Amino acid sequence: MIKVGIVDTTFARVDMGSIAESVIKEELPSAKVIRYTVPGIKDIPVAAKKLLVEYGCDGVITLGWVGKSLTDKLSYVVASMALQLVQLETLKHIIDVTVHEDEAEEEELKRIAVDRAAKHARNLIVLLTKGGEGLRRYAGMGLRQGRPDVGPIQ
Amino acid sequence: MIKVGIVDTTFARVDMGSIAESVIKEELPSAKVIRYTVPGIKDIPVAAKKLLVEYGCDGVITLGWVGKSLTDKLSYVVASMALQLVQLETLKHIIDVTVHEDEAEEEELKRIAVDRAAKHARNLIVLLTKGGEGLRRYAGMGLRQGRPDVGPIQ
Amino acid sequence: MIKVGIVDTTFARVDMGSIAESVIKEELPSAKVIRYTVPGIKDIPVAAKKLLVEYGCDGVITLGWVGKSLTDKLSYVVASMALQLVQLETLKHIIDVTVHEDEAEEEELKRIAVDRAAKHARNLIVLLTKGGEGLRRYAGMGLRQGRPDVGPIQ
Amino acid sequence: MIKVGIVDTTFARVDMGSIAESVIKEELPSAKVIRYTVPGIKDIPVAAKKLLVEYGCDGVITLGWVGKSLTDKLSYVVASMALQLVQLETLKHIIDVTVHEDEAEEEELKRIAVDRAAKHARNLIVLLTKGGEGLRRYAGMGLRQGRPDVGPIQ
Amino acid sequence: MIKVGIVDTTFARVDMGSIAESVIKEELPSAKVIRYTVPGIKDIPVAAKKLLVEYGCDGVITLGWVGKSLTDKLSYVVASMALQLVQLETLKHIIDVTVHEDEAEEEELKRIAVDRAAKHARNLIVLLTKGGEGLRRYAGMGLRQGRPDVGPIQ
Repeated sequence: MIKVGIVDTTFARVDMGSIAESVIKEELPSAKVIRYTVPGIKDIPVAAKKLLVEYGCDGVITLGWVGKSLTDKLSYVVASMALQLVQLETLKHIIDVTVHEDEAEEEELKRIAVDRAAKHARNLIVLLTKGGEGLRRYAGMGLRQGRPDVGPIQ
Repeated sequence: MIKVGIVDTTFARVDMGSIAESVIKEELPSAKVIRYTVPGIKDIPVAAKKLLVEYGCDGVITLGWVGKSLTDKLSYVVASMALQLVQLETLKHIIDVTVHEDEAEEEELKRIAVDRAAKHARNLIVLLTKGGEGLRRYAGMGLRQGRPDVGPIQ
Repeated sequence: MIKVGIVDTTFARVDMGSIAESVIKEELPSAKVIRYTVPGIKDIPVAAKKLLVEYGCDGVITLGWVGKSLTDKLSYVVASMALQLVQLETLKHIIDVTVHEDEAEEEELKRIAVDRAAKHARNLIVLLTKGGEGLRRYAGMGLRQGRPDVGPIQ
Repeated sequence: MIKVGIVDTTFARVDMGSIAESVIKEELPSAKVIRYTVPGIKDIPVAAKKLLVEYGCDGVITLGWVGKSLTDKLSYVVASMALQLVQLETLKHIIDVTVHEDEAEEEELKRIAVDRAAKHARNLIVLLTKGGEGLRRYAGMGLRQGRPDVGPIQ
Repeated sequence: MIKVGIVDTTFARVDMGSIAESVIKEELPSAKVIRYTVPGIKDIPVAAKKLLVEYGCDGVITLGWVGKSLTDKLSYVVASMALQLVQLETLKHIIDVTVHEDEAEEEELKRIAVDRAAKHARNLIVLLTKGGEGLRRYAGMGLRQGRPDVGPIQ
């Protein structure tokens, strides 16, 4: 049985964790989902590592929300770098999903968050069930999460 | 008995360490609080690690104050990244609270500092006593520390 | 037999992985090529490490595509830093190829991607077969990948 | 006997190492001081680690000088991050003092350097002799090094 | 016998590796020099580590060339940070020399590269033969590499 971890935050303005959970259960009904909620993005990496190491998850999706200020962007770098370290140490995938408040206005931001969380939850399931071959046919195809795919350059 | 570490600085212009200590004692009277004061934010991470490793704390809240210059912002990145490393190595939460002088004018900055330190001290207690489930019901709810909550996007 | 890993992404808008694969097979027909496709650049490092550690590759070429926003640039830093960590831990070369959307317009971007992937695939084969001596005669010669060589300053 | 390491650079335009040494000998006459001079800030971290690991120092003060360009700022980040790593690995304090050429004009820059080196040398001695309690009464008091203290927000 | 490693790149527009090699042989004729050429700056750190760990070098000088774009600057941070990690792990000095295309026009850039490579090769030899004491008399003296020394602030 595949165990999938989900980390989300109370800072986020869209409940992306529940969206990811629905998609995972739809894509892989046999999966066990374990959730972990933290205050903000800088609290995500240790939670992700706990899910992989203490809870035995096979992969994790993290759902961060990043404010508009320079400080927020810097915190994003810090959190994402730490998520890299967790992946390298555990040799497991963490899909590091983030929505940034400077991407769009409120209403569109919500659409972005929903679409991105859902598509990346699917990506994670493909990686966990089919490995590095699973996404091969889409390599270089200009897929996007949060927005429509742009396709390959013709 | 839960041991909680607090790291604060002499650079800060608000005594956030004492605020955090009060909240922790109020929220969890049985907790033992251990404090560590350092000059500035770049001195925080090793202090936080000492509290976790040498003093046996179960979690730490750090209270940094960040100046307005680019150098200050870069120092913030450095300190926050190091706090990530401590969390990943110890598998314990460190709530990395910072107040940035470019956030607001003096008077409001003080209100921000007080509110942020208090709310994040509560967050830490929830994580330490209830784990990744404790904040679940607030996931995606747009909570803010230092400012009023903004709520989820409708 | 030399094993070469290729990591590419579904975010990219040019199928650089296949270009790299062709060049490798042309340059070193005896090489075994193993491919791994991930969603975006932040997913590359753990895949690269898997190729080196789990699949026994001797070297890896990664083919990232970086958007125009500040967030994209920051993600680039994060991914590239993680690729450094993998190299240092495994003591093997990873050629970290990236194409950035702010480099040129679409049409030229495709030419850049093709040229860069091909030339760097050759670079990797030289490093893997001839070590640190193989590129010695080009030291300081102003070689470029993705664009014409600029040559040494006269 | 407490051993204190000092790392300074030939790039600096003020002999901060000697200032720090005088203060340390004044504050703690029994201390043994070991000095290490390197070309620039990026050479500091390995020297600091050598002082802690090979020379057995209990703490280190490093005295960097940072030019005005973006490259200099980036080098500052790199050096400071590495100093974090040394602290976390050794669990010892390194006071990472830097003077930045964009802080002030030449004459004032010298006053800043002298003041900052001296005050931080004192900070290090307090941390080494009194631990995390020694600076407690100044927590949140708005102390500054290189400039006059600003005090807490009233 | 002291072994000195030199890492240079094919991206560079001046053959700094050969300049460094000449200086090293002039300053320390008994030294053994081992060279390693890579495509660009992001390939330098693993080469430097190989020289220290696999080839037994006592110290390394790396000679990077950095383009003008933001991407180039970010790659510089990544490469330099990785060189810090190598130094900290091996406890050996790596003089991380870089020439940045935004420093000057072509002709002057060449003079900068030649001067910087030569002076830093000398710095490395001093560190390797005399340790942290060797540069002591120049501490705070405002030495520069690539440009004339600026001297201490009077």
